[in-house]
Amino acid sequence: MQYLYGSAEAAVVTRQNWDALVDHVGAKVRQRPADSVILADGATLQAPRYVPCGGKPFAAVFDVDETVLLNYGFESWQAAGGAYSPERWSEWERTGAADVAPTPGAKAALDALRGMGVTVIFNTNRHAGNAAATAQAIEGAGLGPAEHGTTLFLQGDDDTGGHKDARRARIASRYCVLALGGDQLGDISDLFNAIDDVRDRRAAIGSPAIVGNWGEGWFLFPNPVYGPSIKGGMDDVFPADKRWAPGGATAEAANG
Amino acid sequence: MQYLYGSAEAAVVTRQNWDALVDHVGAKVRQRPADSVILADGATLQAPRYVPCGGKPFAAVFDVDETVLLNYGFESWQAAGGAYSPERWSEWERTGAADVAPTPGAKAALDALRGMGVTVIFNTNRHAGNAAATAQAIEGAGLGPAEHGTTLFLQGDDDTGGHKDARRARIASRYCVLALGGDQLGDISDLFNAIDDVRDRRAAIGSPAIVGNWGEGWFLFPNPVYGPSIKGGMDDVFPADKRWAPGGATAEAANG
Repeated sequence: MQYLYGSAEAAVVTRQNWDALVDHVGAKVRQRPADSVILADGATLQAPRYVPCGGKPFAAVFDVDETVLLNYGFESWQAAGGAYSPERWSEWERTGAADVAPTPGAKAALDALRGMGVTVIFNTNRHAGNAAATAQAIEGAGLGPAEHGTTLFLQGDDDTGGHKDARRARIASRYCVLALGGDQLGDISDLFNAIDDVRDRRAAIGSPAIVGNWGEGWFLFPNPVYGPSIKGGMDDVFPADKRWAPGGATAEAANG
Repeated sequence: MQYLYGSAEAAVVTRQNWDALVDHVGAKVRQRPADSVILADGATLQAPRYVPCGGKPFAAVFDVDETVLLNYGFESWQAAGGAYSPERWSEWERTGAADVAPTPGAKAALDALRGMGVTVIFNTNRHAGNAAATAQAIEGAGLGPAEHGTTLFLQGDDDTGGHKDARRARIASRYCVLALGGDQLGDISDLFNAIDDVRDRRAAIGSPAIVGNWGEGWFLFPNPVYGPSIKGGMDDVFPADKRWAPGGATAEAANG
């Protein structure tokens, strides 16, 4: 939390990502690509295919929490000892609109995208029942418009729960999507979250067929606080052949 | 640690940054800039000036730990309960060369830079007395060459301790530096680390005169594990006007 919500370093990493994203989208607006950056139905990470752009209008699709908004209010409550529960989070969705802030650089970036004629669309796992409050949070932070069903898609819009692929498919049927941004791999494709093993998941992002998409249409923002990235025991996180301990002489001295 | 060393998400954020950095340097190699990205003596964050490039050969300058190398060995020992001390870290510098790995995308990026004719230079606060072992760690990970005094600069090379500006000035006297990369603001300029207050430090990176450098010559990689970014109490990290608590009355009280 100190890193993500307080540090200059995290703010820089986030700004850099917005800068690269705006540059990338600008280049694509000048030269219309054949395909959206949204994987087509039946695609795999080894053999990806993308939804064609045709002559559809341009869009960029973003997750909300810790992508365009920092949830200062909820996280400060957690930092002070509050325990996460789905009910508490839902209350936060309904009542926290005044206690969020844009991620560093988000407002300038979304303004720049809209200035290029790119529609900004939010695809979040906040719940459809709280749509009005979520739109208010986004718009109150200066990041709107966010209109449910056109530029705001929510969990509960369909029967696939927290999976975002069906919502992405709906968006890609209407738009040529030039960029996807999020803080978790599920913001890019449900295919990643189907991988359970921590090491396999880390390896999957380097799959030769899709590795070139990072920073080139697919963008992730830093979030070391929560989500499926915060997972794994010693053997998952640290390779077995990269372990180390101080040498015997020093250890013996320490033992007296 | 789960995030930085284990997650796919952190690996993506790191890869994106390398991708943007190589793109940026490539553009500058094609069109030589007037100035290095290294601040000149006497510059401020409000009125920056940069060391002129003249006809000097191109270089890119990187921190080592958690910038080009992940210290899996030392961090796994810490994760298992080992306590950091300067002596333990020095032992790690001397004996850990086999237990590091490149950050995701680092090897391809450094190879690409060298392929463009850009000299890769490491400027780290590892100690000069351990120069040979540090060169071995960098080269063993496939990221070399790293030669003390020409492409490897270390703490102890001069009498300014952990400050890197004097080493940067030496490098900029010999090279037209197209990119600076690190995990902490001290890898960019000592001016940032002269700012003690957490909120002031976060604000400083948005100074209008330098904010355009992020992702455009100045690049930071994610490190939520250690360093001056991991700092601050509640009032430093969470803005006073963005507090929240469940229940309407409590929320109002929390908001003052």
